[in-house]
Amino acid sequence: MARVTMADVALEAGVNKGTVSRALRGDRRISAETRRRVWEAAKKLGYELDAVASGLSSKRTGVAAVVLERMDAPWTGEFLGAVSGVLSRCKMELLLFEGGGASPAVNVLRRIEGRKADGLIWFGAPAPELGALEIPVVCVGASPRPGQFSVALERESVSARVRALAERRPVRYRGGPAAVMEFLSELETETGDGEPFVVWDGPKKPPDGERPDLICGDERLARLLRANCLRAPVRELGVLAARVLTNAIRGSGVRPAATLVKTTLVSAAGELILG
Amino acid sequence: MARVTMADVALEAGVNKGTVSRALRGDRRISAETRRRVWEAAKKLGYELDAVASGLSSKRTGVAAVVLERMDAPWTGEFLGAVSGVLSRCKMELLLFEGGGASPAVNVLRRIEGRKADGLIWFGAPAPELGALEIPVVCVGASPRPGQFSVALERESVSARVRALAERRPVRYRGGPAAVMEFLSELETETGDGEPFVVWDGPKKPPDGERPDLICGDERLARLLRANCLRAPVRELGVLAARVLTNAIRGSGVRPAATLVKTTLVSAAGELILG
Repeated sequence: MARVTMADVALEAGVNKGTVSRALRGDRRISAETRRRVWEAAKKLGYELDAVASGLSSKRTGVAAVVLERMDAPWTGEFLGAVSGVLSRCKMELLLFEGGGASPAVNVLRRIEGRKADGLIWFGAPAPELGALEIPVVCVGASPRPGQFSVALERESVSARVRALAERRPVRYRGGPAAVMEFLSELETETGDGEPFVVWDGPKKPPDGERPDLICGDERLARLLRANCLRAPVRELGVLAARVLTNAIRGSGVRPAATLVKTTLVSAAGELILG
Repeated sequence: MARVTMADVALEAGVNKGTVSRALRGDRRISAETRRRVWEAAKKLGYELDAVASGLSSKRTGVAAVVLERMDAPWTGEFLGAVSGVLSRCKMELLLFEGGGASPAVNVLRRIEGRKADGLIWFGAPAPELGALEIPVVCVGASPRPGQFSVALERESVSARVRALAERRPVRYRGGPAAVMEFLSELETETGDGEPFVVWDGPKKPPDGERPDLICGDERLARLLRANCLRAPVRELGVLAARVLTNAIRGSGVRPAATLVKTTLVSAAGELILG
């Protein structure tokens, strides 16, 4: 693909390359008329600013880093699709890292600094080193910490609702997107009498097949098992995390330290129980 | 986090900054002894080459682009986890793009060129514009085209095996990871008599519940339905695609134009039928 260069734009606009560069960066020393002419030439030719080169001459690189604690989860695609959509509309690119296990957080953060990312979305248990970064950080599924933004699930109403459905039976939560649903484990109680009420999201078959009071974290399985479904709003978390980050990078918009997302609870019949 | 600079390394090694830069790039004009000394100083201080700056002074940026036709699929995480693991070990970063729907291929390719990616993994139906890129391209799930590498599923033996399991009944494939499993649709036949033999991977319940001859594309569902499971080897595709790409970028290793991956077919009892 023959790339349109800055020289092509300069020729089209009848100015020199330096003027093109300054005009495209919105430099006020270039007259409004010249800036308009350069922008029109760039648009006509389909010119796009060279991102690597312009990253060195301005403060931003147009790159957002996304770290997932565990990449091979089934909801990864939904989360990244949501983040990617928002970043694309803001003309930013997504640099992806796996943060858990083999790569200690400090190494990942060093790589992010090396790439001069403008900001970071961190999905998982927050590493203490995050506080030392000099770029905006949005933690997903975590409680807010000073100086960081967070996007997390609202937990009070969902906990109350799950308790009510349990009707005083013990509640056990297993597997599932722990990074956002870990608060359900707080509902776990250990008692000897009776079957526990189970909030279920693991790959194995639930203990006694199709129980009408089962709550399943996976929509496909919930439909098959005719169970209530507690849907982790992964897409919403992704959209909000990306919006909070892009606003923080541009220094614009509403930026509350903590954003809460509601969890939806849907019955097997598709009825909205909570949400 | 206080970053270690090239000046720190120069001080530690007792040389000037220019020597550090050349030594770390393996410049032969620097003596072996000095190169060793600089590397040891860099290692001791935990110095990492500034990726953006070194990208401008060498031919490579250390960035691989990955384009997914559809990002919100359930196997996205498994694929990206595999690609990310290989790239990390090769000290490369992963720049992620969504290629289908709202973003026409030509726009995505322009963004990739703007970021000066060293290579591209394209998961989905290949766009004609791919041929015009000047970097190595690995297409996943596609037939090889001249000048491009491809990683795809071996289809002959799996098609034959599915036909045999069907015992002359019609076969119908629905939903699922079409980018890699699309060849199953070739088995589809339209007849009026009898229930079709179904290779099933959609979110809906299969037509008549638990059929022992059902083949399911999702491992979790297959276990629950006690069905045979035809597993799309998404992790293997990711590992191979990343290995072929990194080898092509470095101009090393075996680089066959087309690499085929075997599909595994597992019975409900966990018995390996094919693979």
